[in-house]
Amino acid sequence: MILRRRTRQVDVGPVRLGGSNPIAVQSMTKVDTADVRACVRQIGRLTVAGCDLVRVAVPTRADTEALAEIVRRVDVPIIADVHFSPDRAIEAIEAGATKIRINPGNIKKRLDILRIIDCAKQHAAAVRIGVNEASIRDLKEDVPPPRRTVLMLREMKKYVRVFERRGFEKLVLSVKSADVVRTIEANRAIADVFDYPIHLGLTHAGLPEDARVPSAVAIGTLLAEGIGDTIRVSLAGDPVEEIRLGREILTSVGLSEEHRPRLTVCPTCGRCKIDVVRLARQVRKLLLLIDKPLKVAVMGCIVNGPGECADADLAICAAQGKGFIYAHGKKKSVVPEGELMAALRNELQLAARSE
Amino acid sequence: MILRRRTRQVDVGPVRLGGSNPIAVQSMTKVDTADVRACVRQIGRLTVAGCDLVRVAVPTRADTEALAEIVRRVDVPIIADVHFSPDRAIEAIEAGATKIRINPGNIKKRLDILRIIDCAKQHAAAVRIGVNEASIRDLKEDVPPPRRTVLMLREMKKYVRVFERRGFEKLVLSVKSADVVRTIEANRAIADVFDYPIHLGLTHAGLPEDARVPSAVAIGTLLAEGIGDTIRVSLAGDPVEEIRLGREILTSVGLSEEHRPRLTVCPTCGRCKIDVVRLARQVRKLLLLIDKPLKVAVMGCIVNGPGECADADLAICAAQGKGFIYAHGKKKSVVPEGELMAALRNELQLAARSE
Repeated sequence: MILRRRTRQVDVGPVRLGGSNPIAVQSMTKVDTADVRACVRQIGRLTVAGCDLVRVAVPTRADTEALAEIVRRVDVPIIADVHFSPDRAIEAIEAGATKIRINPGNIKKRLDILRIIDCAKQHAAAVRIGVNEASIRDLKEDVPPPRRTVLMLREMKKYVRVFERRGFEKLVLSVKSADVVRTIEANRAIADVFDYPIHLGLTHAGLPEDARVPSAVAIGTLLAEGIGDTIRVSLAGDPVEEIRLGREILTSVGLSEEHRPRLTVCPTCGRCKIDVVRLARQVRKLLLLIDKPLKVAVMGCIVNGPGECADADLAICAAQGKGFIYAHGKKKSVVPEGELMAALRNELQLAARSE
Repeated sequence: MILRRRTRQVDVGPVRLGGSNPIAVQSMTKVDTADVRACVRQIGRLTVAGCDLVRVAVPTRADTEALAEIVRRVDVPIIADVHFSPDRAIEAIEAGATKIRINPGNIKKRLDILRIIDCAKQHAAAVRIGVNEASIRDLKEDVPPPRRTVLMLREMKKYVRVFERRGFEKLVLSVKSADVVRTIEANRAIADVFDYPIHLGLTHAGLPEDARVPSAVAIGTLLAEGIGDTIRVSLAGDPVEEIRLGREILTSVGLSEEHRPRLTVCPTCGRCKIDVVRLARQVRKLLLLIDKPLKVAVMGCIVNGPGECADADLAICAAQGKGFIYAHGKKKSVVPEGELMAALRNELQLAARSE
């Protein structure tokens, strides 16, 4: 139901970004790139978790050399993350990166950019122009936060112009900040001006426990406004967690196909006469074994219970000392409180088996 | 930096909703309302956690009687949550509820609504018209999900008209769904039509581990669009967790004053030469003891490190075998890796003491 912004389509190997293509979830390896075995192992874990594109840092010549081997050994398209060095960008493309990310904050010379463009064109590689507030804020004269959105947009315009004048349009754009509101504002601004696919992310969001809410708010808001064609959650921790959270954000706004059951639970209140939370915890445990996008509801009273239950594939609406079991939206049976879990377990087994 | 939507101001006791007033965070008690002691105790825990308004369910006469006693014993404004019974609404207002919530899905007769309005007017109580998708979806003929947003808006318009014609405008509005996108759409719709304060919430969001991301996305998106004057996160669990998550959402978009340190951490990548996550975990432990809104950063390389460090009150930018300590945005010292934590602990003590 989200009306996505129209963009061009940019192909990154077999993964198509933009247009009406699914939003790709990406992450980045966090081991030494030159350690090919460790890197390939981490990429394997990421793809199993649902990662569509993997980015790899290539700060040294040894890294771009390793990249060639990594690309040969994995199935997923590899993006090279390049800073400071146009040579690394060219080596990475030649090593088989289907996309590179370059940073306008640290590759600034026009001739360097043109060399990269020509190489990307020759190898049909895509390029992300990744503007980052922390890389472009002028360290000499401190730019006040509200002006930084303007600065990011200006930097992006300048850079995109160099690419377009050279006839290169296989671009993906990103503007990141560690601040949620500036990330939202900056992305709205580039979405207004350009029709290239946009890569979303809140950068340096922190340890997982601190980063979840700000990441969900920043990325979720932009997605809900139709902005974003690929996302990367940035957590200081296991990159697999980045994929899980990214998928969770997409699912919450209906932009990722659901494969797992979804459990609706009323928050309970003074009206509630049975232990709904305990019941819901037991149901959730059972659901961990089921690999189907079932909608399951555990509701505690008659205010919203019947409505949510009617929307679910399987539900309990609890009353004093008993519960109503619903299947496929219809009331099916009344069961005494003590037998509710057993009855629900039976229904779940039926639902899990049926197609 | 979020431009909030203009609304009227509605006073709920000393708490002012709408206009440019702070966004109030609320929750609901989850114990038997007639158990005054348990209820007052839970309200106490909620206010300590930062709850500005507490809602209490009053399904029976015994509950509205208990409400009078509860109101006397607590400091925070109490909202009565009323369904089905206009008598409960009137009893609750007479018992001292500064606001009541009524549900157009189950109090429908015009004369009942008018009785409630007259009583609220007499006692200067505010009224939230709380439309809930699960209460108004027509159970007889299943309304398809996309049409429900329209249905919620239509129900709201009908109800508001009754209040306005009776000369009552001390209204707060809410439209809730368990679906993130419909919650966003429905709230955008009422924000377009009315200028009353809006109460935001994603309803029946589930157990805390499932509800965090969808709640953050739904509420965060609307706040980022300037919509929302009071919020309630709905978790199947301890209501104190609702307040914590609500505050976290507000803080993420800069709509709640920060009292605690904020820790920016780079997600690390193949460029990173020291264990940034371990360092960040140690720093986070120290920060738990500090009650000041310090900005602290732990960064792993020179790409974005200097920029984020320059924005922080206190920061480490790590390099191979050493780290640069920044204080108030300025590089202060270079410290060998093994001494980084000790150096940072010293700086933190200084920062925690200074005003």
